Amino acid sequence: MHKFEEITVKSETIFKGKMISLQVDEVQLPNGKYSKREMIKHPGAVAILAITDDKKIVLVEQYRKPANQALIEIPAGKLEPGEKPELTAVRELEEETGYRCEKLEFITSFYTAPGFADEILHIYKATGLKKLEEPKTADEDEFVELMEVTLEKAVQLVTENKICDAKTTFAIQYAQLQEVLNAK
Amino acid sequence: MHKFEEITVKSETIFKGKMISLQVDEVQLPNGKYSKREMIKHPGAVAILAITDDKKIVLVEQYRKPANQALIEIPAGKLEPGEKPELTAVRELEEETGYRCEKLEFITSFYTAPGFADEILHIYKATGLKKLEEPKTADEDEFVELMEVTLEKAVQLVTENKICDAKTTFAIQYAQLQEVLNAK
Repeated sequence: MHKFEEITVKSETIFKGKMISLQVDEVQLPNGKYSKREMIKHPGAVAILAITDDKKIVLVEQYRKPANQALIEIPAGKLEPGEKPELTAVRELEEETGYRCEKLEFITSFYTAPGFADEILHIYKATGLKKLEEPKTADEDEFVELMEVTLEKAVQLVTENKICDAKTTFAIQYAQLQEVLNAK
Repeated sequence: MHKFEEITVKSETIFKGKMISLQVDEVQLPNGKYSKREMIKHPGAVAILAITDDKKIVLVEQYRKPANQALIEIPAGKLEPGEKPELTAVRELEEETGYRCEKLEFITSFYTAPGFADEILHIYKATGLKKLEEPKTADEDEFVELMEVTLEKAVQLVTENKICDAKTTFAIQYAQLQEVLNAK
């Protein structure tokens, strides 16, 4: 049994959508009392810190309805059923940026919002980027604009809160830490 | 008008819970076509990188139902209606760890999962920690276990994927970057 485990006594799926589902569980707490847990089920996703041969970071700007604004992020996308995260990373990088990568390295995985969602995000570093002549196109309802910026500029975008999502803020900081460590 | 703005033509609230709500919007895309956006509404939250006078990072272990396991995280909690994030940070730090802080510094804010949720997380650094003799207690249905670890140990927990949520992974990396920069 896990530490502080909450035992599910009832589970109800409230909504099944094309991206997320909503489930409400009644659980028994370690003290014997009961509580409800509202949870989003998500297939998981990948994000890619893609760095060009001239050391630019590839970013995509896209409208995010939950934020009611366009956000500047590293390329990302959700896993298709049964798809290995590495393949999702290669596919999403190609669809969103037109780049194929020669090298893909795993950085880390994390829960984005474990208080209410089971989404796990896998983050990769992609290098050896080659622009494809005929890249696969993005999903029909995705509109993205490509940007390539220096690490210095990316850090500035974070400081100005123009980059303001968890995965991108983390990835830029990762690149910054690697640069400082390599310069030592 | 925002870049690539999606115009809401219909909005439906599917579920209103105690922590999150689910809303499905029908939107008109930049190309004139229509699509649906599934969105979680969340009040926002804070997380605190709390560092003791002997340079230990304060962590809390708690069961996270969406992850079906106990996770080791920095202290965090959601905003009460109308509450300023700084006050939430002070309150949650006290409730979850029994520490009051003399100094609270803003680190950054980010969307945790902008693809499907509007949650904004505000991250603070807390120092000058004093253990309270009679701290306010946590929510009735929260069971947390306190840990205090060195930065080196925290980095190891991330590497071993024992720390595996976005805010904590970010915060430990932040502490690591600051240490490397200060040592230069």
